[in-house]
Amino acid sequence: MTRADLLFPSEPTQRAIARELYAQAKDQPIISPHGHVDPAILADDAPFPDPAQLIICPDHYVTRMLLSQGVSPASLGVPTLDGEPYETDGRAIWRRFAEHWRLFRGTPSRLWLEETFREVFGVTTAFGPDTADEVYDAIAARLAEPEFRPRALFERFNIEVLATTESPLDDLGRHAKLAADGWGGPGGRVITTFRPDNVVDPEFENWAGNVAKLAEMTGEDTATYRGYLAALRKRREAFIAAGATSSDHGHLTARTLVLDESEATALFEAHLRGDGDPDKAEAFRAHMLVELARMSIEDGLVMQLHPGAVRNHNRWLYGKHGRDVGGDVPQATDYVHGLEPLLSAYGNDPRLRLVVYTLDEDTFTRELAPLAGGYAAMYLGAPWWFLDSPEVLRRFRESVTESAGFYNTAGFVDDTRAFCSIPVRHDVARRIDAGFLARLVAEHRLPLDEAAETIVDLAYRLPKGIFRL
Amino acid sequence: MTRADLLFPSEPTQRAIARELYAQAKDQPIISPHGHVDPAILADDAPFPDPAQLIICPDHYVTRMLLSQGVSPASLGVPTLDGEPYETDGRAIWRRFAEHWRLFRGTPSRLWLEETFREVFGVTTAFGPDTADEVYDAIAARLAEPEFRPRALFERFNIEVLATTESPLDDLGRHAKLAADGWGGPGGRVITTFRPDNVVDPEFENWAGNVAKLAEMTGEDTATYRGYLAALRKRREAFIAAGATSSDHGHLTARTLVLDESEATALFEAHLRGDGDPDKAEAFRAHMLVELARMSIEDGLVMQLHPGAVRNHNRWLYGKHGRDVGGDVPQATDYVHGLEPLLSAYGNDPRLRLVVYTLDEDTFTRELAPLAGGYAAMYLGAPWWFLDSPEVLRRFRESVTESAGFYNTAGFVDDTRAFCSIPVRHDVARRIDAGFLARLVAEHRLPLDEAAETIVDLAYRLPKGIFRL
Amino acid sequence: MTRADLLFPSEPTQRAIARELYAQAKDQPIISPHGHVDPAILADDAPFPDPAQLIICPDHYVTRMLLSQGVSPASLGVPTLDGEPYETDGRAIWRRFAEHWRLFRGTPSRLWLEETFREVFGVTTAFGPDTADEVYDAIAARLAEPEFRPRALFERFNIEVLATTESPLDDLGRHAKLAADGWGGPGGRVITTFRPDNVVDPEFENWAGNVAKLAEMTGEDTATYRGYLAALRKRREAFIAAGATSSDHGHLTARTLVLDESEATALFEAHLRGDGDPDKAEAFRAHMLVELARMSIEDGLVMQLHPGAVRNHNRWLYGKHGRDVGGDVPQATDYVHGLEPLLSAYGNDPRLRLVVYTLDEDTFTRELAPLAGGYAAMYLGAPWWFLDSPEVLRRFRESVTESAGFYNTAGFVDDTRAFCSIPVRHDVARRIDAGFLARLVAEHRLPLDEAAETIVDLAYRLPKGIFRL
Repeated sequence: MTRADLLFPSEPTQRAIARELYAQAKDQPIISPHGHVDPAILADDAPFPDPAQLIICPDHYVTRMLLSQGVSPASLGVPTLDGEPYETDGRAIWRRFAEHWRLFRGTPSRLWLEETFREVFGVTTAFGPDTADEVYDAIAARLAEPEFRPRALFERFNIEVLATTESPLDDLGRHAKLAADGWGGPGGRVITTFRPDNVVDPEFENWAGNVAKLAEMTGEDTATYRGYLAALRKRREAFIAAGATSSDHGHLTARTLVLDESEATALFEAHLRGDGDPDKAEAFRAHMLVELARMSIEDGLVMQLHPGAVRNHNRWLYGKHGRDVGGDVPQATDYVHGLEPLLSAYGNDPRLRLVVYTLDEDTFTRELAPLAGGYAAMYLGAPWWFLDSPEVLRRFRESVTESAGFYNTAGFVDDTRAFCSIPVRHDVARRIDAGFLARLVAEHRLPLDEAAETIVDLAYRLPKGIFRL
Repeated sequence: MTRADLLFPSEPTQRAIARELYAQAKDQPIISPHGHVDPAILADDAPFPDPAQLIICPDHYVTRMLLSQGVSPASLGVPTLDGEPYETDGRAIWRRFAEHWRLFRGTPSRLWLEETFREVFGVTTAFGPDTADEVYDAIAARLAEPEFRPRALFERFNIEVLATTESPLDDLGRHAKLAADGWGGPGGRVITTFRPDNVVDPEFENWAGNVAKLAEMTGEDTATYRGYLAALRKRREAFIAAGATSSDHGHLTARTLVLDESEATALFEAHLRGDGDPDKAEAFRAHMLVELARMSIEDGLVMQLHPGAVRNHNRWLYGKHGRDVGGDVPQATDYVHGLEPLLSAYGNDPRLRLVVYTLDEDTFTRELAPLAGGYAAMYLGAPWWFLDSPEVLRRFRESVTESAGFYNTAGFVDDTRAFCSIPVRHDVARRIDAGFLARLVAEHRLPLDEAAETIVDLAYRLPKGIFRL
Repeated sequence: MTRADLLFPSEPTQRAIARELYAQAKDQPIISPHGHVDPAILADDAPFPDPAQLIICPDHYVTRMLLSQGVSPASLGVPTLDGEPYETDGRAIWRRFAEHWRLFRGTPSRLWLEETFREVFGVTTAFGPDTADEVYDAIAARLAEPEFRPRALFERFNIEVLATTESPLDDLGRHAKLAADGWGGPGGRVITTFRPDNVVDPEFENWAGNVAKLAEMTGEDTATYRGYLAALRKRREAFIAAGATSSDHGHLTARTLVLDESEATALFEAHLRGDGDPDKAEAFRAHMLVELARMSIEDGLVMQLHPGAVRNHNRWLYGKHGRDVGGDVPQATDYVHGLEPLLSAYGNDPRLRLVVYTLDEDTFTRELAPLAGGYAAMYLGAPWWFLDSPEVLRRFRESVTESAGFYNTAGFVDDTRAFCSIPVRHDVARRIDAGFLARLVAEHRLPLDEAAETIVDLAYRLPKGIFRL
């Protein structure tokens, strides 16, 4: 047994088949249609910072696990909002992390980090408290080399296309730079994604100000609902010109709602003048998903929906360190009733592509697979956040395939801001798919040749096709 | 490895045990206590239509999967309600289906179809776009032979008893014909099931008209609640005379409610005069489950409850093609609170047998197993629709056995209208049970002789006993 | 293959690793930080009663399964409340139980009983209807021997510490006796746990009377809210003096609520004067969890929360035989919103330790693991009741490890009143953990040496540390 068999079933029949299937998939180019890499990394192509700043401080999977055992985020280099000092010494952060390495046993973070150390940086020393400095120094040395600049790594990682995610208020300057360098623009290697939460959700911080900024950027009168929609359309055009093929929508629930123009206008205006409330805000968001689906049908952007994250559940963490540092948790999500209005309106329209994600694994069999397996417009996104792990990737296939098949799933997305972890994340998904397909073959449910075609579809052809790349 | 090992675990120890256990079960007669085969098929014993009309057009598992990839039901021969033309050329339908065969990889439909081709029709050619015509012609040729008439297949399938499902408004004429031919009636091979949804659910299309028709059929005054109950009792008697041993109830939720006669009368009358509303309808349905349980205790019909299907979720499909063509989806179901009133009233009464099904796998461990394992009247129905697949059949055993044991489960039901798929569906369940029991044996949790007795109980003795066949 | 491999995966690679890991864990002392053994058993150290009185009558896992197949609890020796006679002949009960032995195939009860017969009593005869008397006689003979007195078994079982559970109204007399004998008190082998449900839940039978009794015991004026809190604090002190290191809270839901003193006082007084209602009761319970968390921070008692049991769902059983005889069932539990107020207040305070249990397996991945993996105060309790079985113990690790790791789980608790089953319950957990870790090793996800350290942590070090033993 060698590391080559990582994550494969240990039963010899299945393992042999898994190896064979994985061999088909492992060298396929990476399609990364959804993620949060900062485009500045690739636009500037500057050397990465020290190993801790690169790998530990911005990874909330890591800092929340340490917080759960009483290690403060500030001591791990997470910036504070209140001016309290936080650790800035990379080596000190790295050692503190290494001391708690055992916490990550059995987690995907351990897998991603180990494989990143080994495959990206060529460090084969087993990581732990005793080897923390050795590993730190080795990675730091590599980071100083030109082959470890972002664009060089992008090539080495065999990424065909990487989509970042920007708000409509972003000027897309980094993407313009990428296009100028031959890296971006329509059909380019680095493209953007239209993510309008901060102008669509009336409860978003400074929503009214954001809507006003939209007017400045587009010349539309966003004090009116019609002008607001026109402004959104203009920004979508700008995003398409910057290479975007999809939009992304992070909502608390999956609720959708069909309102007529006068009702939508009334809600929009109520919020603008400060007369909103949570019910009105939910109704407006729900309606806007339908409105945005209509825009998708017009302009061809694939629509992604990410519902179910209770943002800033850990209020102390939010107060001290702000958003996106590990304080969110999942909640139960109702797709069957939530999506019904949208699907009734456009679910059978083949011009719409709606890729739906979940943080609620309990909906795999009961809701998501039956919906994706029954509406032409709907596809299942890969297991997302908290679920982007080997065990859940396997359960995802075990749960959704029987009702939705493989071809209503949209392929793996890494959804990460950790650029260096992209290869291992895709590799894990390919290995798990190889193992799942190997079991189908070993149980005589699928011939080997069809399994081999399927794994390449999952790794490459499906995401490329569904996301219109 | 050969196809004989279909669906068995590939680990050699478990596979060897699974083979041995399966050998005990595979030739047991089929008990099919719940399904939707049209009794006319067996009453008339006419040759089946062409392969597409037999296998593709009426199978909503197949047509919904194709719809989910943009292939219209009309192009697959599903009749339209609005007069728009639909495909009627069997071979054209068959080819269109074959072109999309890859969509069914990993689904139970693929398994059922492949095994039907092979085992029922003796066609061993691998199915796919290139062999579509060959397979079509081979099946068509068989269908013309007398050995492929319904009754001949029934004998070959080794079916001991098959229950169809009829509404109280059905005159049971086909069952009378079957009885006259020595095939039906009490203790016969083909029996009916009493399914009163269309007269129990005030929101059912034309409910008031159906209640009026009940009066015509029974001579009872169904304009009064007492007369309505008396009419239901008379129809139950007629069904019992036609061989029925069970009733079946398809409800949106599992809610039950104990009302006194005056409250029930008021709800009934409100609906009859058009003063109903959704809450009243839900209350009436909930109450009627308790009323029907009382009738079951009187007349001995085993009561089956199928809750949780959101009917006609896909409204476009419903508008164009009507009911039961793939537009339903599951929703979350609360059994613990929903069934409490009924179970409080009669759950410990051994005269009642209540077989409960689910579309919501998340209730297996939390609700269904603890209830079935704690009330004398309650049994667990086999995984139903969307869940009638190898992976879920396995998870069902893994989830419910520890709290409910094997003996509070009611055996496999195929729940199908696809007559030719009955053997393979039961075979899949037997194979999965063999694999599950093999693991218990391999992990030293159950001796082989007890596992061998158990698998015969599951395949034959339990459904026969629990459904009073 | 031998019984030594009980519950290990049958795949040879995994089995070999599981054996090696289990060898590390199997002789670790038992830490039993939560359970319901009657302390009188160990205080008095009297011989146990006959085998049926010891093993069958008080085990509601057993009596509910038999009830589910129509065997009355009274016929199994469960005392009646209404004076109706119930079986008292141990041998008759035992034979009746043995006749239905097949019902327990695949259940944890079978495993626990078989291993108890074999390992505790040295009875190797296969149990069943034919051997019922032989097994009964063998066990009865053993029970008469001094080596089978409770304290002797405690030593043989290698229990390091066992926590029982008492109400604040308990005078802790048995624990005083244990302390006097060198068995109890702080740091002792048998300690108590503070379980205040009967004085915290205004809907508990005789709550006002219990609150009054609290005044008698403490000298505080529990007619006032401040006095009530002071009385609770005094009882906690008494429990700590009797060795308690934790409190335990059985609530219908996981709801928590932060009220100010005047609001809490108003609710308390409303209930005392009989003006409560279900909403007020829920609010008071929810608030008290926060109040009790504050006390935990002060006095160091680890706080355990057991939500989600619908008590006395089977009302006939409750009416005839009372509480805790098998009539409870689980319900869905919302931890994400329920615990938010408590976690917002104290979730990041390392002085608080909150161990959360569940009856709702669907929350493992979606709620419990993300919360425990993101708050310093929260730990996951072992799968509880209905879930304390091999399949769920395995699914627990498969579901929570990826988000919470191993080190936010609090180790196995047996939660049992069946003293003789304690060793086998812990053994089952160790075997399942060995199997899970073996798979991680076999799939190259964890090195063997780390897995070996982890299994000892899970079996011994974690519960000992987290429960402050």
